[in-house]
Amino acid sequence: MSTGALARVAPVFDRAPFIRLMGYRLVDAGDGWVETELEVAERHRQQHGYVHAGVVTAMADHTSGAAATTVIPEGRSILTAHLATHLLRPAAGGTLRCRAEVVKPGRTLIVTRADVFCDDTHVALFDGTMVSVEGDIA
Amino acid sequence: MSTGALARVAPVFDRAPFIRLMGYRLVDAGDGWVETELEVAERHRQQHGYVHAGVVTAMADHTSGAAATTVIPEGRSILTAHLATHLLRPAAGGTLRCRAEVVKPGRTLIVTRADVFCDDTHVALFDGTMVSVEGDIA
Amino acid sequence: MSTGALARVAPVFDRAPFIRLMGYRLVDAGDGWVETELEVAERHRQQHGYVHAGVVTAMADHTSGAAATTVIPEGRSILTAHLATHLLRPAAGGTLRCRAEVVKPGRTLIVTRADVFCDDTHVALFDGTMVSVEGDIA
Amino acid sequence: MSTGALARVAPVFDRAPFIRLMGYRLVDAGDGWVETELEVAERHRQQHGYVHAGVVTAMADHTSGAAATTVIPEGRSILTAHLATHLLRPAAGGTLRCRAEVVKPGRTLIVTRADVFCDDTHVALFDGTMVSVEGDIA
Repeated sequence: MSTGALARVAPVFDRAPFIRLMGYRLVDAGDGWVETELEVAERHRQQHGYVHAGVVTAMADHTSGAAATTVIPEGRSILTAHLATHLLRPAAGGTLRCRAEVVKPGRTLIVTRADVFCDDTHVALFDGTMVSVEGDIA
Repeated sequence: MSTGALARVAPVFDRAPFIRLMGYRLVDAGDGWVETELEVAERHRQQHGYVHAGVVTAMADHTSGAAATTVIPEGRSILTAHLATHLLRPAAGGTLRCRAEVVKPGRTLIVTRADVFCDDTHVALFDGTMVSVEGDIA
Repeated sequence: MSTGALARVAPVFDRAPFIRLMGYRLVDAGDGWVETELEVAERHRQQHGYVHAGVVTAMADHTSGAAATTVIPEGRSILTAHLATHLLRPAAGGTLRCRAEVVKPGRTLIVTRADVFCDDTHVALFDGTMVSVEGDIA
Repeated sequence: MSTGALARVAPVFDRAPFIRLMGYRLVDAGDGWVETELEVAERHRQQHGYVHAGVVTAMADHTSGAAATTVIPEGRSILTAHLATHLLRPAAGGTLRCRAEVVKPGRTLIVTRADVFCDDTHVALFDGTMVSVEGDIA
């Protein structure tokens, strides 16, 4: 039952102007994982017409940060210390779907992993080193 | 004299809707390097008020891809195969400046490195594995 | 049935002096994956008594390179272009087990992923960008 | 004057069995940087005759960990949380030289960067996320 996790991570999406501008949408969340979606539009594209690597990476990063948020105590927040993305194939359009999972929940460092699909194509493999810091996002 | 490099990479910025929406600006370019700027605005921020890691990464990635473009033959284009960013410190506002350089120009793979500064603060260290593919962006 | 894959990757272990010195052992292989083992000994340790990060990374890298070898044509070989390892927890001793898989088989670039366990502890998450080059190892 | 830094990092090399077996040699050190060397021998090679990617990575990792050790308080030690290596060119033989530097000294996380040269060839670009933990190595 993921009501607690969903409620925990919803503000991470609602209060982030860049996330709203891009249109990343929180789909579901549980303890240690989050799923998001993005309807690809013109504003997401680079000069070849593909979704920009930065748009794919930002989606995986934000979804991973949200997943990390589900495993830390109330009153703490997540910042990304390191992120890495394999852009496996160009993402041409349709819907991007991302699932991020916590690989290792630590007190300070949380390692995450995420996959991004464009319709049925696996377009990105992401991993992140997240830091839990004191203070709420509100 | 960097006129050739600037002319070569200008379309990489002008024709990319995501880049225009974000506001990344090409400042200068030479053989194997590119410099860009971004005036931080509300739309770049995440839920804590900092510039989103994805915005910083996208800037470093795009600047690096442009740097790689300066070392490949006409008629070829650059795609990112792998990228990684150390988010060294939060970027709070002001102006982001990025300089990207080609570390190793290969026929197929081009390794790049970039630094991002927020005013006088070093906020990110980026490295990329770029692939040179056939075909022009136009 | 993995006889073909095993036969293909066996020389990658037998003919590599560093691999023999370390003692990495090929356990099984199939199309797109390889499994290896290492009995931890004194020579693998760093100054705190843990297995050195380089020993864990070399195991994941070599196992990943072998996995990539199973998906390329005869007469070609694999070189690592980029590797990255999350050292999730210290590896204290016992037996290291690694499983590497091909995430994306490309003509030139092959993306791999590997996990390393120390007895029942997940100690490392690895990802690699491998390049297929002309020429046999023999 | 680097006497203090050299004395601080010497045990990181002397007390690590894997480092002694490989033959990595501490050359010089100062606040925030360390330099090392390795005479390439048969035991460092993979199946193509090149120095194994794991040997290059272990050198960069260990040198980076030592560099991080120079910027933390006495009584604390360094563990690698994440490492990444671009293998720019094959290392065929001769002498490997590595210089590692601290890019960002934090209380918990220390970001490092290293380059490895094989004679006059730039063979690797490395970056690491190091964690400062309580406890001495002795």
